Amino acid sequence: MDAQEVIRRCELLAQCTEEPGHITRTFLSPPMWEVHRMVREWMEEAGLRVWVDAVGNIRGVSTDGPRLMIGSHLDTVPHAGGYDGILGVMIGIAMAERRIAPLEVVGFSEEEGVRFGKPFIGSLALVGTPRMDPEILDAIREYGLEPEQIPQAAVDDKVRGFLEFHIEQGPVLDKKDLPLGVVESIAGQSRAALSYVGRANHAGTTPMKFRRDALVAASNWVCFVDYKARGTPGLVATVGQLEVESGAANVIPGSVHASLDVRHADDSVRAEVLEILRHAANSYAGCRNVKVVWEETSEQPATAMDASMIAGLCAAVESAGQRPHRMVSGAGHDAMILARKVPAAMLFLRSPGGISHNPNEAVYASDVDAALAVGARFLETWRPT
Amino acid sequence: MDAQEVIRRCELLAQCTEEPGHITRTFLSPPMWEVHRMVREWMEEAGLRVWVDAVGNIRGVSTDGPRLMIGSHLDTVPHAGGYDGILGVMIGIAMAERRIAPLEVVGFSEEEGVRFGKPFIGSLALVGTPRMDPEILDAIREYGLEPEQIPQAAVDDKVRGFLEFHIEQGPVLDKKDLPLGVVESIAGQSRAALSYVGRANHAGTTPMKFRRDALVAASNWVCFVDYKARGTPGLVATVGQLEVESGAANVIPGSVHASLDVRHADDSVRAEVLEILRHAANSYAGCRNVKVVWEETSEQPATAMDASMIAGLCAAVESAGQRPHRMVSGAGHDAMILARKVPAAMLFLRSPGGISHNPNEAVYASDVDAALAVGARFLETWRPT
Repeated sequence: MDAQEVIRRCELLAQCTEEPGHITRTFLSPPMWEVHRMVREWMEEAGLRVWVDAVGNIRGVSTDGPRLMIGSHLDTVPHAGGYDGILGVMIGIAMAERRIAPLEVVGFSEEEGVRFGKPFIGSLALVGTPRMDPEILDAIREYGLEPEQIPQAAVDDKVRGFLEFHIEQGPVLDKKDLPLGVVESIAGQSRAALSYVGRANHAGTTPMKFRRDALVAASNWVCFVDYKARGTPGLVATVGQLEVESGAANVIPGSVHASLDVRHADDSVRAEVLEILRHAANSYAGCRNVKVVWEETSEQPATAMDASMIAGLCAAVESAGQRPHRMVSGAGHDAMILARKVPAAMLFLRSPGGISHNPNEAVYASDVDAALAVGARFLETWRPT
Repeated sequence: MDAQEVIRRCELLAQCTEEPGHITRTFLSPPMWEVHRMVREWMEEAGLRVWVDAVGNIRGVSTDGPRLMIGSHLDTVPHAGGYDGILGVMIGIAMAERRIAPLEVVGFSEEEGVRFGKPFIGSLALVGTPRMDPEILDAIREYGLEPEQIPQAAVDDKVRGFLEFHIEQGPVLDKKDLPLGVVESIAGQSRAALSYVGRANHAGTTPMKFRRDALVAASNWVCFVDYKARGTPGLVATVGQLEVESGAANVIPGSVHASLDVRHADDSVRAEVLEILRHAANSYAGCRNVKVVWEETSEQPATAMDASMIAGLCAAVESAGQRPHRMVSGAGHDAMILARKVPAAMLFLRSPGGISHNPNEAVYASDVDAALAVGARFLETWRPT
């Protein structure tokens, strides 16, 4: 099973969709049946014993004994590309086929969080029983699975590590002209929701000096967020949503809602910047006689990947003739969840153009070949510490 | 008919609404029937001969001979206050009741432009036949009027001037603690629509230096619009709408749409600032590798009020014991339309708190008394030049 076959299988799975003409496949949606049928067949051909666990993860083992787990997710965002997640599962099967070391291959049922707004349902079941809303339990039952069995989905102590192959979904490797990257940590992330309240007023009759313009206050802060992030190495900060409440061309904005997303590999840097941004929001608003309410909506600490696995991957990249490039993942991945229980690591494959979550998402066959070679080398040499 | 009675009549008309619990009365909507019934009765009591013209303006004349027209509009914005427009019609009736000089009193059917997105339908019919969309003609017919008769709604050459009493709808008189203001001109106004196009991308995986963030580019420009307006005496500039297309907290904004509204009494100042703001939009976008498209959506030149009427109003304000304060109207008014055909002027009444287009819109009875006194004095003394 070479890169061409890995890519061909990704393309076959891309046909399984809720929306003809697009790739859209959410948690336990009907097209997942066909995905499970094909993946089961390929896993069995690779010599694995296969089952679907109680949250819908498809799993194949070459042995019940000590083993490395390789996997990623099989669900997609709406109007997705064909490689995010899926590629990692196909590479896992290709690894199993080579019978180099005892393996478990897993295709997680849910990572993106699209169907129920809760990401990582699949991998969370492997590290402990996740809290499940009744609607999620209903979806599990509808798919023909038994939520009572979820505790049995947890990894046993024979799983000695977790390795995830995944497209980078960013431009770093592409800009550096490198096929592969070794993830050393997954960035921590904070989200906040800001509400600016000034005073809506007539755009023609209210002189500038009497205004309490919520949008001007918010815009000052958006500029500062960008400025601060550019000045902090390794930090990304994004205002992705900004809404003027009942905005009209001739009305001074009275109320603005904005989101903030801040990520960094070092939790203390993230916390410090977050505090500075919060202070800036208050002071820019204060200058404009505008009130701002800051609500921190979520917080996820940074997750270090396993040092021994990182070293093993770097050595494998070198022996495959590539320069090992260590990097931080700005996005969350299943490996971040598995790291709670087992040593975990990730190998990134270059994303051409940095494009992902988009039908134009792609992967180079030569990069897949490089990943297969690195994976094989890693399996030959790495032993859990 | 004193200030209390003027206010009482405004409150009675406020009961005529399309939405119980709110004041919402658009062009020729059903509650306008009841408005016309009451206004007709009050006009007839004041000795006027009354008719409703073919666009639904209610008009009353004391004579077909040379006369001054006094009026304002009877329609409202959604969830309006009780005085915007309506107060000017009630003061006109109070003036007619005093039988000081020959008058025509008019209550325009449409000024706000809410129902069909076209403002000034009422006053435009008095200065020439406005272009009417078929849906407007249908609304006129449904109300029982004949669009074929619209040309007869035009003012004849016996109308020697137009005077409009109106609440300021801004904070200037309130901040200066003055009951009245004499409008010397109505600001010219430009509107533009801007589209910023950068590149949507993952907020976690895209380093700051590779971003093409449309919102950061737009925010830089919003700050500059505010800065430039504050530095230009008499200018107001507002970004009232700003929308991030398919914004999500974890996606770098790829596309942003914004509005711009710029007003000034001097058309050349407005044009110069507009050009500077357009240049700034391009240069802030360029810095971010973002494209911006600027579309000028409307342009309305400044309208000077009639010098002789301004002088008459200032003299009348002084003889009523008040300091005459000349000011620019930042909002458009029916007087701006009538000025195309006849000498026109406006007297502003203070808006407590500067509040308008809002249920809390108010007027002080003592200010209405002052306006009645000024109106009476003006009618006693002013003769068309």
